[in-house]
Amino acid sequence: MIEVCLLGSGGMMPLPDRRLTAMLFRYKGRLLLIDCGEGTQLPIKLAGWGFKAIEAILLTHYHGDHVAGLPGLLMTMGNSGREEPLTIIGPTYLYEVIKGLCVIVPKLPFEIRLIELPEEEINTINLGEIEISTLPLEHSMPCVAYCIELKRPPKFDVDRAISSRIPKKYWNRLQKGENIEYNDSLFTPEMVLGEKRKGIKVVYCTDSRPVEGLSDFAKESELLILEGMYGDNDMLSNAIEKQHMLFSEAAEIAKSSNSKELWLTHFSPSVKNPEEFLVNASSIFSNTFIGKELMFKTLNYED
Amino acid sequence: MIEVCLLGSGGMMPLPDRRLTAMLFRYKGRLLLIDCGEGTQLPIKLAGWGFKAIEAILLTHYHGDHVAGLPGLLMTMGNSGREEPLTIIGPTYLYEVIKGLCVIVPKLPFEIRLIELPEEEINTINLGEIEISTLPLEHSMPCVAYCIELKRPPKFDVDRAISSRIPKKYWNRLQKGENIEYNDSLFTPEMVLGEKRKGIKVVYCTDSRPVEGLSDFAKESELLILEGMYGDNDMLSNAIEKQHMLFSEAAEIAKSSNSKELWLTHFSPSVKNPEEFLVNASSIFSNTFIGKELMFKTLNYED
Repeated sequence: MIEVCLLGSGGMMPLPDRRLTAMLFRYKGRLLLIDCGEGTQLPIKLAGWGFKAIEAILLTHYHGDHVAGLPGLLMTMGNSGREEPLTIIGPTYLYEVIKGLCVIVPKLPFEIRLIELPEEEINTINLGEIEISTLPLEHSMPCVAYCIELKRPPKFDVDRAISSRIPKKYWNRLQKGENIEYNDSLFTPEMVLGEKRKGIKVVYCTDSRPVEGLSDFAKESELLILEGMYGDNDMLSNAIEKQHMLFSEAAEIAKSSNSKELWLTHFSPSVKNPEEFLVNASSIFSNTFIGKELMFKTLNYED
Repeated sequence: MIEVCLLGSGGMMPLPDRRLTAMLFRYKGRLLLIDCGEGTQLPIKLAGWGFKAIEAILLTHYHGDHVAGLPGLLMTMGNSGREEPLTIIGPTYLYEVIKGLCVIVPKLPFEIRLIELPEEEINTINLGEIEISTLPLEHSMPCVAYCIELKRPPKFDVDRAISSRIPKKYWNRLQKGENIEYNDSLFTPEMVLGEKRKGIKVVYCTDSRPVEGLSDFAKESELLILEGMYGDNDMLSNAIEKQHMLFSEAAEIAKSSNSKELWLTHFSPSVKNPEEFLVNASSIFSNTFIGKELMFKTLNYED
């Protein structure tokens, strides 16, 4: 099970009635945060999952609306009594940006570990049982989409383990994927594991034009969160110029990736009522929702 | 006439129902902003005076709750089409802080002019007809109080000007304080100006312990805005340790400075209902008000 919470739905700048886009994930009491614009610490507080358990902050890119709230959040986390190291992941310029913003952050009671993503097509980072992958996007600065995946191990086949005479003490390690040498035998996970099982996959993408690999990257996701800067199809030239997406373009990606559900977010301040344009997406991909502050969802394994 | 607007009343961190302390001044359509914590651009928007006319930003110090909103505000000002230079004033470390925070600010359509205050007892800067003075405070980093003063020129005495045979074309320059040499005569402002007249003086002070010079600095102010981190007198040891003030300490300063009105602000998140402690200040200085977001006041000359 993964719980998600969309923390805001705005793009460019916070508005009195619309907080900036960011997202919180909870798995076994540990939290991951994607992006941290000005004011993001407020919906985190309102979400009620606390600040202390934030294990990692994943930054899509370094425009202010995605990162300017970081110094404030770090200070609030420091005040919450956190002592465990915090991981911050982001594309090129991460070191420079964190160094700059932290000029106003006093000494924190926890260590910050930075992971600046290499400029590869796909990067994968394992954080406990969660696998984080990134895909480069097309924006006015280095920017990545994130895939958060909780892998599900295949079922353990007790009958096969017994018939292969594998001592019980190795079962757990085999299920976790280890090979075991025992006397002259080699026990492999394949000997005891059943068919692959689908995990839980959530893909988050702001800010970008639709890029070629995105549909594959989001393939079969349970939940796809995509930016929809403009709702009106007539805004295509603005979307191209500012390197953002239309609702309809986001819906095409949800459809071609065979995702289960699409949340649109990161609306331009000029889009006063995003619901008005929902039909431009739902006519292409019916299971589309307009993102809102504190929109929660619990994602479970399929069966 | 000066109009003022308190933009928030919180200290340490923004809360869902309490924005951070900052203040906006309007004089002849030009704006001055004191401090810019995370989210301060939102009450500025709600105040309705616009972003474009902000002529200068005065920073008291560089704790996040006073400065972390600066990158977002600069970007919003850039988006508002502003092109005139912006002045930012602050104590020691101003260059370093602005350079750090601006790592996420793209190229702006206006120039930023920095005035880092020398470590003097009192600094005075003239911004058009407004005189800005600063006083060093006692906090955990360099921090200053600001005095915003609209000086009022003395009345021009037409009868004396005529009897002193001063040509009319020099009257205006004399009223502005210039000496004029004319043939073999020297005309001085004293020859034509009446008694001094009181201007409009507003003093703003967060964060600090009460310091010796503060009462003098705030002398006869029309409006005194002071931090009141804690309302309860029993919190004195916390106030001393964290270098903040109690409501009662602020009220003592309002009283001894003979100010007209006191606004308390910068409440600790632990102070849920500041009104509850108002009596601790008003019993010392009766004209005390609990600061609130979007508290406006228009200050006029005395007569």
